[in-house]
Amino acid sequence: MISVVIIGLGNIGTHLYKALKIAEGVKVSQLYNRTQKKLNPFRTAVNTTSDITKLIEADIYIIATSDDTIKSISLCLPFTDKLVVHTSGSVPIQTLTNKNRKGSFYPLQTFSNDTTVDFKEIPICIEAENTPDLSVLQNLAKKLSNNVYHITSEQRKSMHLAAVFANNFTNHMYYIAEQICKENKVPFTILSPLLKETALKLNVLSPYAAQTGPAKRNDSGTIHRHLGELTNATYKEIYTIISKSITNTYGKKL
Amino acid sequence: MISVVIIGLGNIGTHLYKALKIAEGVKVSQLYNRTQKKLNPFRTAVNTTSDITKLIEADIYIIATSDDTIKSISLCLPFTDKLVVHTSGSVPIQTLTNKNRKGSFYPLQTFSNDTTVDFKEIPICIEAENTPDLSVLQNLAKKLSNNVYHITSEQRKSMHLAAVFANNFTNHMYYIAEQICKENKVPFTILSPLLKETALKLNVLSPYAAQTGPAKRNDSGTIHRHLGELTNATYKEIYTIISKSITNTYGKKL
Repeated sequence: MISVVIIGLGNIGTHLYKALKIAEGVKVSQLYNRTQKKLNPFRTAVNTTSDITKLIEADIYIIATSDDTIKSISLCLPFTDKLVVHTSGSVPIQTLTNKNRKGSFYPLQTFSNDTTVDFKEIPICIEAENTPDLSVLQNLAKKLSNNVYHITSEQRKSMHLAAVFANNFTNHMYYIAEQICKENKVPFTILSPLLKETALKLNVLSPYAAQTGPAKRNDSGTIHRHLGELTNATYKEIYTIISKSITNTYGKKL
Repeated sequence: MISVVIIGLGNIGTHLYKALKIAEGVKVSQLYNRTQKKLNPFRTAVNTTSDITKLIEADIYIIATSDDTIKSISLCLPFTDKLVVHTSGSVPIQTLTNKNRKGSFYPLQTFSNDTTVDFKEIPICIEAENTPDLSVLQNLAKKLSNNVYHITSEQRKSMHLAAVFANNFTNHMYYIAEQICKENKVPFTILSPLLKETALKLNVLSPYAAQTGPAKRNDSGTIHRHLGELTNATYKEIYTIISKSITNTYGKKL
């Protein structure tokens, strides 16, 4: 049985708790959160605390707070020589204080409060300073997911950057598409099959091979018309720079 | 029985032919393509020609060529007063010559040669100058898809622009993500579950509600680090302008 304390009940912490509490061979010993309010829904099911000095004994402490608080939280921990990991994509494990053993436990997925996710499919990227700790993390990760990767802090950092493009920026493209639909009284749901196909296509094609559209064809007439239709100056800038990037990508190799 | 001639065997024309030839109550009478080579695979199954003057009788002629050739193809058609439609997202039906009745038949999906698509799920947007022609197009569209929309040229144009953001630009985000993974020796497939979830999330959340990441949080530390990691100047520009747009989107309403 691996015992775990989760520190921070944001999106990741909450999803992690829900997944870990039903995982076999795992005991969530305690949840910590800075404010009591977020702990209330869980009080009957698990030991909770909003006092960092009251953390109890466990095999792994998972800090699931925002990137800029990881360091200060790790400094406040009331124990030494325990395995302490964070869930951040972009923070190196050296940010954690030396008084405990360091690691990371990074589920590469987008978590929102209102959605449920199947952890079995989520890649979990783990890192630790020594082999025994890595084994412990691997054990825990495998109880949640079929896709466990051992990666370095450097690789994790670059994956996080890649994920910003693949997820955050992609979602903003959806948002802009929705705004254009709204302005023109077209229901955004018409685009749903296209959005799904765009992502699923990557099961059979590389993004390079999957690219279509006016910028790939260097169809300057359509590009010019589109820029004329866009009323938002920032969206115009985005259209211009991404089209240039696509045209460069294909121009180089044609 | 509705008879159809397909003019142009690019991605859309080919997918359309494959879908129409198995649709009940539809007969593909002929395929036209400028070059013979693309017609060869279909010669045993259907009448084909690379001579535009040899087009045969049909209820609907579908021009599935590139945007900039629609006008000249429509001028070359060797008949008058027939229903002629194009499959373009961005070309108004007025671009078609007056000697025939005009319409559009626009499947809103991304078509690649190497993928198969389920037409039942694809929204088909139709437009015609008069009610009888619209009925004919609606009949044909319903034989392929459960999602048929009657829209104006203006709406179609704006949907096409929205689709460029939602599909073309999204795919380029995937491409950049893949480049970052390659540079750092991380397999791009680690990102697959994230890409799928990003699209599927929109079944339950709006793009506005689904947004996550450093730009939404206005986390300037992470944004600054990411810009430092990007080596490609164009990708840096893209990162900067999209992050600014995300921050503006949330800054306004917070």
